Amino acid sequence: MKLTILGCYAATPTKHTNPTAQVLEIRNHIFLIDCGEGTQVQLRRSKVKFSRIKHIFISHLHGDHFYGLIGLISTFMLLGRNADLHIYGPKGLKELTLLQLRLTKSWTSYKLCFHELESDAPEILFEDEKVTVTTIPLNHRVYTNGFLFKEKEKERKLNINAVLNYDIEKCYYQNIKNGRDITLDSGEVISNEKLTFDPPKSQGYAFCSDTVYFPQIIDQIKDVDVLYHEATFLDKHDQLALKTKHTTAKQAATIAKDANVGQLILGHFSTRYDGFNEFKEEAETVFENVALADDGKVFEFN
Amino acid sequence: MKLTILGCYAATPTKHTNPTAQVLEIRNHIFLIDCGEGTQVQLRRSKVKFSRIKHIFISHLHGDHFYGLIGLISTFMLLGRNADLHIYGPKGLKELTLLQLRLTKSWTSYKLCFHELESDAPEILFEDEKVTVTTIPLNHRVYTNGFLFKEKEKERKLNINAVLNYDIEKCYYQNIKNGRDITLDSGEVISNEKLTFDPPKSQGYAFCSDTVYFPQIIDQIKDVDVLYHEATFLDKHDQLALKTKHTTAKQAATIAKDANVGQLILGHFSTRYDGFNEFKEEAETVFENVALADDGKVFEFN
Repeated sequence: MKLTILGCYAATPTKHTNPTAQVLEIRNHIFLIDCGEGTQVQLRRSKVKFSRIKHIFISHLHGDHFYGLIGLISTFMLLGRNADLHIYGPKGLKELTLLQLRLTKSWTSYKLCFHELESDAPEILFEDEKVTVTTIPLNHRVYTNGFLFKEKEKERKLNINAVLNYDIEKCYYQNIKNGRDITLDSGEVISNEKLTFDPPKSQGYAFCSDTVYFPQIIDQIKDVDVLYHEATFLDKHDQLALKTKHTTAKQAATIAKDANVGQLILGHFSTRYDGFNEFKEEAETVFENVALADDGKVFEFN
Repeated sequence: MKLTILGCYAATPTKHTNPTAQVLEIRNHIFLIDCGEGTQVQLRRSKVKFSRIKHIFISHLHGDHFYGLIGLISTFMLLGRNADLHIYGPKGLKELTLLQLRLTKSWTSYKLCFHELESDAPEILFEDEKVTVTTIPLNHRVYTNGFLFKEKEKERKLNINAVLNYDIEKCYYQNIKNGRDITLDSGEVISNEKLTFDPPKSQGYAFCSDTVYFPQIIDQIKDVDVLYHEATFLDKHDQLALKTKHTTAKQAATIAKDANVGQLILGHFSTRYDGFNEFKEEAETVFENVALADDGKVFEFN
């Protein structure tokens, strides 16, 4: 699981800060999460292959989270894309995108599949044999979802020495990896645990931005390996956070602690602050494992 | 008159190239011409004061000429702007902008004044005592206008020594600068040319992008000081230029020559080419005074 931060600053793009966008690579998928203005250039800087992006998740319809989407859609078109593109986001995104295409007299050489969201309860947006993606309903000034990306349980690892002891034909190996016991020709049943090791741990990533401090999400993100949570403000501006429905670094850390996550990554910083180390220090008073996002930064999780 | 190129490359923004946007400073006005994705960041890089932009001219509704507009409008809002903003561009721009504002549950703290264009004949878009801005109808795949910015004739300069010879009261000086003759108390008429020098030459700037080679514009831009003309392709790709309704460097130079302009600036280069010196060389086979645009480049015209 690998996370590339394309942009992690609030509101307006500047010379040195980009609005929200990130790429999660998980089990051979490349998921784009949010798409602020300039995302396509940030994707190029991070050398993400455009053709591998098949799913884009938009948290909410504030400009700093989606104004780069139509440009990316247009660029896909110019690059001659033909693979379907799935876009998950609040209702309205389809109408807007289609109007933009109509006004520019453009069409896409590929299929645009919109999955418009309106529910206030978690919904599974994507599922295959390896991964699920679920919405995390958040509480912001407009309808907003975070996203929970979870690997499904991986297959067990063959204990090849044990397997060879029993003269088992290779065609049964997949069954063993799937957790099945084996009945030998003699009738003896060999339990799966004698033949396998536990699978590698399945990983999970929760993206939560933008939202006011919202403990209702804790149950859903419980024990997740990595939590990216917005921390627009420091605690000294907690009233401003409340008013604008954003979170402070301390509140984000409280969510991380109460949800018992493995690691907390803070982002969506207000550019009113000169530096962001104070965000880390403040969060660490509550929760130990805190990292700061930054544009272009890559996190690898094993 | 000063021109700042914010972006001058065709189609898709990349790490090193920005789509079309430029700022013309003329007689204390700051006019923004086109607004591709990333324009607000380019404005910051060029240190253009956001609050001084009161008029934005959009040539046509292709993404590389206007996808940065909504982000700029939003940023103006976040910066607490209250001055009116005038936006001149093809019909549809208002509907799209208002939909974007509605979906993002946003409003502007300032008045957005849309001037939607549909005419195929030149129209005066803006006029005050110093400057006029007129559309230059172009011929592209969608409805497109260039823009002609012209200083009005400046007032004549007082020949102060001559004026003092005649014991003329100061309250008449403005009349003299306006070109009027003066009748002395004695009844003697002093002709204006004895009292003044010719005014500084009025300057003009024509922006022509995007368009196929379109000699119909020559009459309108005749003798203009500076012509910015698109040159998406080199002559060896003239068929591609024709098909996509763009211009080659050679064709742009032919327009410059036939219109007898002072200087030609080439831009809107296709990023298929590795370098752009060949554009200059090709244009110079037809017209002498050729410059290449580049992102961040500033042209000062005296």
